Amino acid sequence: MAGNSFGQLFRVTTAGESHGPGYVVIIDGVPPGMPLSEADLQPDLDRRRPGQSKVTTQRKEADQAEILSGVFEGRTTGTPIAILIRNQDQRSADYAEIRDKYRPGHADYTFDAKFGFRDYRGGGRSSARETTVRVAAGAVAKKLLANIGPEPGRGVRVVGYVIQIGDIVANVPDPAAVTLDQVESNIVRCPDPVAAEKMVALIGQVRREGDSIGGIAEIVATGVPPGWGEPVFDKLKADLGKAMFSLPAVLGVEYGAGFGVATARGSQNNDFFLARDGRIVTATNRHGGMLGGISSGMPIVLRCAVKPTSSLPIEQPTVTRAGEPTTISTKGRHDPCLLPRFIPMAEAMMAMTLADHYLRHRAQCG
Amino acid sequence: MAGNSFGQLFRVTTAGESHGPGYVVIIDGVPPGMPLSEADLQPDLDRRRPGQSKVTTQRKEADQAEILSGVFEGRTTGTPIAILIRNQDQRSADYAEIRDKYRPGHADYTFDAKFGFRDYRGGGRSSARETTVRVAAGAVAKKLLANIGPEPGRGVRVVGYVIQIGDIVANVPDPAAVTLDQVESNIVRCPDPVAAEKMVALIGQVRREGDSIGGIAEIVATGVPPGWGEPVFDKLKADLGKAMFSLPAVLGVEYGAGFGVATARGSQNNDFFLARDGRIVTATNRHGGMLGGISSGMPIVLRCAVKPTSSLPIEQPTVTRAGEPTTISTKGRHDPCLLPRFIPMAEAMMAMTLADHYLRHRAQCG
Amino acid sequence: MAGNSFGQLFRVTTAGESHGPGYVVIIDGVPPGMPLSEADLQPDLDRRRPGQSKVTTQRKEADQAEILSGVFEGRTTGTPIAILIRNQDQRSADYAEIRDKYRPGHADYTFDAKFGFRDYRGGGRSSARETTVRVAAGAVAKKLLANIGPEPGRGVRVVGYVIQIGDIVANVPDPAAVTLDQVESNIVRCPDPVAAEKMVALIGQVRREGDSIGGIAEIVATGVPPGWGEPVFDKLKADLGKAMFSLPAVLGVEYGAGFGVATARGSQNNDFFLARDGRIVTATNRHGGMLGGISSGMPIVLRCAVKPTSSLPIEQPTVTRAGEPTTISTKGRHDPCLLPRFIPMAEAMMAMTLADHYLRHRAQCG
Amino acid sequence: MAGNSFGQLFRVTTAGESHGPGYVVIIDGVPPGMPLSEADLQPDLDRRRPGQSKVTTQRKEADQAEILSGVFEGRTTGTPIAILIRNQDQRSADYAEIRDKYRPGHADYTFDAKFGFRDYRGGGRSSARETTVRVAAGAVAKKLLANIGPEPGRGVRVVGYVIQIGDIVANVPDPAAVTLDQVESNIVRCPDPVAAEKMVALIGQVRREGDSIGGIAEIVATGVPPGWGEPVFDKLKADLGKAMFSLPAVLGVEYGAGFGVATARGSQNNDFFLARDGRIVTATNRHGGMLGGISSGMPIVLRCAVKPTSSLPIEQPTVTRAGEPTTISTKGRHDPCLLPRFIPMAEAMMAMTLADHYLRHRAQCG
Repeated sequence: MAGNSFGQLFRVTTAGESHGPGYVVIIDGVPPGMPLSEADLQPDLDRRRPGQSKVTTQRKEADQAEILSGVFEGRTTGTPIAILIRNQDQRSADYAEIRDKYRPGHADYTFDAKFGFRDYRGGGRSSARETTVRVAAGAVAKKLLANIGPEPGRGVRVVGYVIQIGDIVANVPDPAAVTLDQVESNIVRCPDPVAAEKMVALIGQVRREGDSIGGIAEIVATGVPPGWGEPVFDKLKADLGKAMFSLPAVLGVEYGAGFGVATARGSQNNDFFLARDGRIVTATNRHGGMLGGISSGMPIVLRCAVKPTSSLPIEQPTVTRAGEPTTISTKGRHDPCLLPRFIPMAEAMMAMTLADHYLRHRAQCG
Repeated sequence: MAGNSFGQLFRVTTAGESHGPGYVVIIDGVPPGMPLSEADLQPDLDRRRPGQSKVTTQRKEADQAEILSGVFEGRTTGTPIAILIRNQDQRSADYAEIRDKYRPGHADYTFDAKFGFRDYRGGGRSSARETTVRVAAGAVAKKLLANIGPEPGRGVRVVGYVIQIGDIVANVPDPAAVTLDQVESNIVRCPDPVAAEKMVALIGQVRREGDSIGGIAEIVATGVPPGWGEPVFDKLKADLGKAMFSLPAVLGVEYGAGFGVATARGSQNNDFFLARDGRIVTATNRHGGMLGGISSGMPIVLRCAVKPTSSLPIEQPTVTRAGEPTTISTKGRHDPCLLPRFIPMAEAMMAMTLADHYLRHRAQCG
Repeated sequence: MAGNSFGQLFRVTTAGESHGPGYVVIIDGVPPGMPLSEADLQPDLDRRRPGQSKVTTQRKEADQAEILSGVFEGRTTGTPIAILIRNQDQRSADYAEIRDKYRPGHADYTFDAKFGFRDYRGGGRSSARETTVRVAAGAVAKKLLANIGPEPGRGVRVVGYVIQIGDIVANVPDPAAVTLDQVESNIVRCPDPVAAEKMVALIGQVRREGDSIGGIAEIVATGVPPGWGEPVFDKLKADLGKAMFSLPAVLGVEYGAGFGVATARGSQNNDFFLARDGRIVTATNRHGGMLGGISSGMPIVLRCAVKPTSSLPIEQPTVTRAGEPTTISTKGRHDPCLLPRFIPMAEAMMAMTLADHYLRHRAQCG
Repeated sequence: MAGNSFGQLFRVTTAGESHGPGYVVIIDGVPPGMPLSEADLQPDLDRRRPGQSKVTTQRKEADQAEILSGVFEGRTTGTPIAILIRNQDQRSADYAEIRDKYRPGHADYTFDAKFGFRDYRGGGRSSARETTVRVAAGAVAKKLLANIGPEPGRGVRVVGYVIQIGDIVANVPDPAAVTLDQVESNIVRCPDPVAAEKMVALIGQVRREGDSIGGIAEIVATGVPPGWGEPVFDKLKADLGKAMFSLPAVLGVEYGAGFGVATARGSQNNDFFLARDGRIVTATNRHGGMLGGISSGMPIVLRCAVKPTSSLPIEQPTVTRAGEPTTISTKGRHDPCLLPRFIPMAEAMMAMTLADHYLRHRAQCG
């Protein structure tokens, strides 16, 4: 059924497949009067784009967005914003082999099980290429968030980065202090330059071995005022969790102290309240910026575990559609590590979720 | 705004607060003709009930459900099922102190920030007592799921258990083989009897120290056919993730290999397909039962990290509503470890999510 | 599927049947801090209550509401408001005959066709008694609306009345000037006292003849500022239209000039704009208060055509469940004319729709 | 907020404005495996297209649809179907005058009141041109409906026609017997050829007078099985009513006997049940095909009152944005009567609503 929309008030609906004509997103609910043009979308599209560096897939896509509606004379009108991104480098010939074989770790088998058949030219609807238009929508959300509060452009900010690839763990003492410039200073998007260098080397090595490697991304929102979110089912942590798990390859999500709480005592784990500069804050941020599903005013900090790319050039055992044993080696162009391009996707999902809860909060609480 | 509903087709809406008259849930979308009575709800309500053992809070609640609608002559009619559970042991006097102080780790401050004031007699809407009616709704979902497939009562099954408390980790070789009887054989709901004994001892110790302890729950669904879920935003893992994070105290969720994928190579991490008894399965289940957001037919396995109870009898520093430094020690009746009572809550959320996706799949794919 | 909720942000979900324990409504999304108690609900519940006068059914129901949640110390908390109204005078014995026969004009046959069986003790879920809790929810919406704008209690006002019963048409020169006192000054709820007297006589006559009679209600909202509504699918007239057609027995809805536009020229039909007291208004209100689906600031005026009661004491031909010809005469207690009790139901639906669009407008446009 | 989607399971979201690059629609929830191509969309697009005859506007638009997604090798895949229709003949110069003046009967003023500014090149989002993509989505819904039941292509059928323009009323003895061929046999889409000729003459006359004229459309669905719809808020008549009122210029909607019920006695108005050919039917169809919000198996018959075009070549008084009195005569290309092109729009909305309730019924009742 209708499962291609996200959000209640800042509502994003996408369509498109990796080997069809292209992708479209409709963003409904954007407040009127906000400056917006294609130029606002391109930087994040470029960060997500394939072929951007030696650590990513070499598929070539310009990923240039055309705004079809909802903007007039450079400002949003309050009507839905449709954005079109056409596919260019489809090369479905690369994928001929996968027509009758199930790629391990992919959705080929589950698509057939669900729909009875599938677009066998590639990932189809389940391709990570679908996130292209999510990133465009996320750029709109980021712009909306940035303009909340007294200082235009300095409101809520969302920044993500790579914190771990394989065994290499970055040293990031203060998540809330990481800047976009730091993230973009290297091709793996890790703000710790020493770790970044090792990560680049590791990715190069696994690529040469015909293999792939997983990692962890950390996404941070700063400037979120206390009070966003809902107490029960639509807890902010629940909607952010859904947002992150809606991205391909994510097998784990955690906030603040995360899985570390399993071994913690309450007396160690609680973040104590104190007043600072007239605001109530917590001394530490093990809670990750939300209490009872509602933002606390502290930075929102979450981490996503991203699996190693399933498509591999080396031979892997699998079955045909008929269930016969066979092997498959994916000749398509794939990332040896998903993390560097995952960052703008995850930022987009966090921004969309926050924009939605901003409007929801405003609706009920004025 | 309206954030107190869960699910699209199997749709659950709850209301109620910990110190008001009681809780009500409306379950909309249940297929007609399914046998149902209050007796179907009580076992899980009893598993969630406070005061059930020495490792839980001593608040006394019978938690007896009254079905107000949607059932006629012992069968569901297809109209919404309303269930009422009245509060009994409210003792709001216990909570007088929290009127003007913010309890660390609780939603007191964030509620005030959001709504301007709050029901200061207890957790109010953010109390974990709200899950009582979720558990009732989950019991309806479990019954629906159990009757899917050729053998009534032997369809989809959801079982959860405690896999870790503090540093004590249970040995559970096959998540899909754990039975409800095993889980209920001890008061911590851990199917490994050796670990269970140590967990009981640990909880007793932290309670005596006026402290609390966290842990990890594992929730497993077996019998889910391949094909449930959606490819993009409403991935089954995304909706299950939201479901789990909508529960209080959950700071992390992971599927299958979970955060372990960060250090894995693709060649190790992929689960290879093979045919067994005429069905396509995977040799291993590192993917946790879903690929591309759609069930693979393998057991769905997820884990939730649950923080240690924030309410502590020992003194903790905090501030008053006015921001003045103070201390607080919670005299209320609280669980020293949330995990044993968390199990039926998490099972309920998984069952509701699966019931919803069952109906969604049937709607589109017949 | 889940079809028992109404509204997006002011979201109302109902459950209950005419011969079960009672009805419950959950109202989600009400802003916090609004004064509210059961006393706010009772006046409209009394206007809808059976047995209120000689022109209505004699079923006896106190229809006393219990607020179960969402209100603390006399004010809404922002959490969902659950309201319970128990049934008292069920007398299902009256309905024994309808178990195996299909009443003309009722939903007996269509329920069986949809769900396979039904609660044969009465109308079950399709009984107009379901509107009891809608009226309670409408009273909450009315209170919210009344407090919009600079003068508390004098914001948006919703008033309905009977404008036609059978051939008797009331003379109401200015719909926006009708007061609740005028409406309540007689038992048919018609603000034209001359027509009202004739209507009472006509209803008495059809009752004595074992028959029933239809009519038209007019519902008016004043004080709605320009700008509420949406341009496309969720036009205010579309959502109000759905609201009215969701009520039993409504076969027609029209706004402003209504079906009269069929024979009108554009030059006659257009309402010209002019400025008055610094506001832009229209000279006439043939458009009924909405243009392009958005409120114009003029009074919203709609009319509903309500069919004559289908249940009749006289014998009517019909079939049994098995399709055998038979006759039926409904011995139950029914209104000879639905209009007088329809008024508070329709007001409630209009108020809920307006409250929802108020919050929706605030969400997007601040 | 997000108000540009329609339907729950067959879910249609549109974007686009009359003078922007074009329109896009995303249709989510279409079952997989249904044959579909652009050729299925074009016939209805051509029926809606401007410039099709002397009784319509002369704006030139090819209205050629491009399917961007959701179809592979000629069949739907179950993923969302995006359809793009670009604008061609925009001529915004025609509309220069309306930048600062409010056209009577249009949404210019209400858009400014809601959003603070508007796309002044034409109707913008509120232009009836938005229905282009609704008609494309409706064609998909029609195809789905036609294939329900034992005989592919002969399932549920939706046909609309003009039944009244001005004082000219068509003679249509049996709504369920009207064929598409009859409707398309003349340029006003009236199945009564005598009335059709008079209607053409009347439209010609009002056009020459610089005026416009209203009318009534009748839309009929045959082949709908009993059991579709929901008992309470989402009654089939409620959702169809919303569907129709979501179309521009509709001021009234009625079913079956419609407003005629106001003067009817129950004994005259009830449709008696009888068995015919093993099916339970009603002897008459005053109820319009739905009882208690659920389809009865009888033809669904509704009528829409459509106002005369508000844009007129003759001078009409109005105000400027600043509230100064002025006059306006619309030089744009407009239909002197909206009815002929309204028919495919209304059919599309009925088809979408029925397709949605078909899937909803299947979800809950199997």
